[in-house]
Amino acid sequence: MSEPSLLGGPLRVVAVGIDSFADALRAQGVPSTRVDWRPPAGGDAEVAALLARLWCDEVDAANRAALTRLNAARPVLVDVRPAIEVVPGMTPDTILHAGPPITWDRMSGPVRGAVIGALLYERRARTEEAAERLAASGVLRFDPCHHHAAVGPMAGIITASMPVLIVENRTHGNRAYSVFNEGLGKMLRYGAYGEDVIERLRWIETSLGPAVGAALRASGGIDLRALIAQALEMGDECHSRNRAASALLIKALASHLAALDLPPAERARIFAFAGGNDHFFLNVSMAACKTATDAAHGIAHSTLVTAMARNGTDFGIRVSGLGDRWFTGPAQRPVGLYFSGFTAEDANPDMGDSAITETGGLGGFAMAGAPAIVQFVGGTPADALRTTRLMYEITVGEGDAYRLPGLDFRGTPTGIDVRLVMQTGLLPQITTGIAHRRAGIGQVGAGLVRPPVACFEAALRALAAVRPPAPVAVRGS
Amino acid sequence: MSEPSLLGGPLRVVAVGIDSFADALRAQGVPSTRVDWRPPAGGDAEVAALLARLWCDEVDAANRAALTRLNAARPVLVDVRPAIEVVPGMTPDTILHAGPPITWDRMSGPVRGAVIGALLYERRARTEEAAERLAASGVLRFDPCHHHAAVGPMAGIITASMPVLIVENRTHGNRAYSVFNEGLGKMLRYGAYGEDVIERLRWIETSLGPAVGAALRASGGIDLRALIAQALEMGDECHSRNRAASALLIKALASHLAALDLPPAERARIFAFAGGNDHFFLNVSMAACKTATDAAHGIAHSTLVTAMARNGTDFGIRVSGLGDRWFTGPAQRPVGLYFSGFTAEDANPDMGDSAITETGGLGGFAMAGAPAIVQFVGGTPADALRTTRLMYEITVGEGDAYRLPGLDFRGTPTGIDVRLVMQTGLLPQITTGIAHRRAGIGQVGAGLVRPPVACFEAALRALAAVRPPAPVAVRGS
Repeated sequence: MSEPSLLGGPLRVVAVGIDSFADALRAQGVPSTRVDWRPPAGGDAEVAALLARLWCDEVDAANRAALTRLNAARPVLVDVRPAIEVVPGMTPDTILHAGPPITWDRMSGPVRGAVIGALLYERRARTEEAAERLAASGVLRFDPCHHHAAVGPMAGIITASMPVLIVENRTHGNRAYSVFNEGLGKMLRYGAYGEDVIERLRWIETSLGPAVGAALRASGGIDLRALIAQALEMGDECHSRNRAASALLIKALASHLAALDLPPAERARIFAFAGGNDHFFLNVSMAACKTATDAAHGIAHSTLVTAMARNGTDFGIRVSGLGDRWFTGPAQRPVGLYFSGFTAEDANPDMGDSAITETGGLGGFAMAGAPAIVQFVGGTPADALRTTRLMYEITVGEGDAYRLPGLDFRGTPTGIDVRLVMQTGLLPQITTGIAHRRAGIGQVGAGLVRPPVACFEAALRALAAVRPPAPVAVRGS
Repeated sequence: MSEPSLLGGPLRVVAVGIDSFADALRAQGVPSTRVDWRPPAGGDAEVAALLARLWCDEVDAANRAALTRLNAARPVLVDVRPAIEVVPGMTPDTILHAGPPITWDRMSGPVRGAVIGALLYERRARTEEAAERLAASGVLRFDPCHHHAAVGPMAGIITASMPVLIVENRTHGNRAYSVFNEGLGKMLRYGAYGEDVIERLRWIETSLGPAVGAALRASGGIDLRALIAQALEMGDECHSRNRAASALLIKALASHLAALDLPPAERARIFAFAGGNDHFFLNVSMAACKTATDAAHGIAHSTLVTAMARNGTDFGIRVSGLGDRWFTGPAQRPVGLYFSGFTAEDANPDMGDSAITETGGLGGFAMAGAPAIVQFVGGTPADALRTTRLMYEITVGEGDAYRLPGLDFRGTPTGIDVRLVMQTGLLPQITTGIAHRRAGIGQVGAGLVRPPVACFEAALRALAAVRPPAPVAVRGS
């Protein structure tokens, strides 16, 4: 066989790295195939050095353990009880909110609005002004939902009297809590606090909550792992699209709700409320993911993200191997579709604990299975597919139960690795609702948002700092 | 510019037609690109001549009119009543069955089983033997469901006492009828007639039917066009996958069912029955499609298929421009997945009116939107996508309301054209359940099936026969 000649035939070039190589070749008429390669950490030598310390067997093993726990979770919706009775550390003066810790003076408009609404609902104040004074007085204890095994969408306010959905992780024994989803439009979680909002919260407390609780107890619990797996085959990503999951939940509850001894009109109202809200399942999905991510939390040296949450001012993440610390950066404004009459000018920065769904492998990470969501958050079905494919680049594994038929039943990208995010520069993609920046108005749209890179850079520094010295290899000992 | 030399450079060949050209080139080391072109009608000169008569403006216009009617249909589920009260031409001696006309002596095992079951249910016989004697006696009137504005899945038996779902086409004013879906396994429609089967039918007659009827009347009717459109965004194709549509239907009925004055245990049983059957919606989907295809029927010169139906022995089609005639061929055995313990040996030939869904642009034609269905009928999600894409080759249009997000919201292939089927040799793809070939056993699997080409060839001949002579072009008149 003769030696192949390098330059004897037409040149076929594969260009890796900066575009100017390929551009120069093209200018000379030489075709080339480009490989989308970039230097790690965008070429930042310091970050690359931190990363280098973390690419090691010990961290890999810790992440495998965390991923196993994430995937092994078996969340079951078991009951509804008043928050004061079941949420750990809840007191009459406690106001839980979404995202990392924040003080009243730094809260954005819709979060303040939701606090005002909660104080009116709890009868701690009779007017908006009185509620604001009380909120600023220092008497109340503001605390993240995440510090109490709870999650709340958007403002995420949970107070003592609110009934909470209880999800139990049957594998690991932990529980998570969330309030009921109120519907779309003017809602407490979007910072609205009109009489209709307060009235609805009272009806949820006195009628819906107890009824659903009784139905759940009669049912023996609803297997959310199975329900979410089904919903993913039905076009939901269980964050910003919950149409199938909501219908499946109602179907699962229906015979038990129907058997309750209630006035027919009240029973009909419960079904109409649940059936009239395609996001009825969202808060359940969030609590389910919270039980899984909490189980994956606290594994030494793991670089897996176990929470992503926003309070309307800051975006914060928590990492399995870094205990209770939050790593924060400024919350971004989502990009998406606005309801009639509103524009990006009206948008509050990103808020809510709902990014726990992405943390658990759902939401933006499962968009490939939810092409119809683009009607709500913008973009095309091809964008949705691309988003999920990209998320495989920053996750250490794939869902066991949560699979996408459109990707040949491949598991959803699961287990966000701080290292991979910093290495690739790809940030997690989150689907989200958009709140008006002023208190009292409510939802104005839906779209997509990413965390600020600062969260991940700060977490990376903390991870590198706690890395033990590299083990010394002792041969033959 | 110099004249290009044909044989001076490397040969690039595009091979159109029979494979032996391309094969010969490849044997000589010349690469070629093949175009999947075949002569019309598989090269059958007689059929090609018949086809040539039908490719004309008049037929095209008739088909456009038929397609417009198909797409304009607004099916609404309005009520449930006993068949004897509402199904046109129903009598106590009438036994409606699926597919084209058939006599007792030619019926396959499961259809005979379903007839026996229906006679036991109607108390026309007390034993299997007595029922068989009655069926063979000539006293009864066997008639296709399709002759009575009705459709039934599998054996498709409808008798006087059975409650029927009533779907009204609000655009054209016509109605269609179907029985309730009984669930999976040993069911009348699969030819089972045990005591449990009869008992269930009686409960449907006395409890479920009246309750759903009352709920529907209270609701003002359920918009099936909107519901099916949603279900297609949720992974259903509304023939062999109805999980989303069933849940949406239950959700839509729930508040009205909940308000009924019924004993709590009975109300719970109704919800449990409906919620326990992922095919609860199938019969509703069929009746919805029947109202649309009936509206498109009877347009002179139209070559659009308005019914495809099987009686377990024959496959029959009807064509818009050919009145009440059936064009039949032998029913095929489906190819698919079998339940544990059963094989293709056990399969009865194809049966049921459910291919009305494909006739209406759903079912196999919408498989691209239902990738998870392959777990039930076999194949891969890529096969499902390919099937839908192929069906665009034999349809004259696309669905207005029925769209597939995975295909960028393209409408489903709609309006099967006898000409296109014969021209391309592509047969409609139908998703279907598989019945055991013996009476009394029930469903043994699910899969895919195609009509015999004989139906379409016979229809083509009939269409060509009624074509008026080609108009004489008179210039300048």
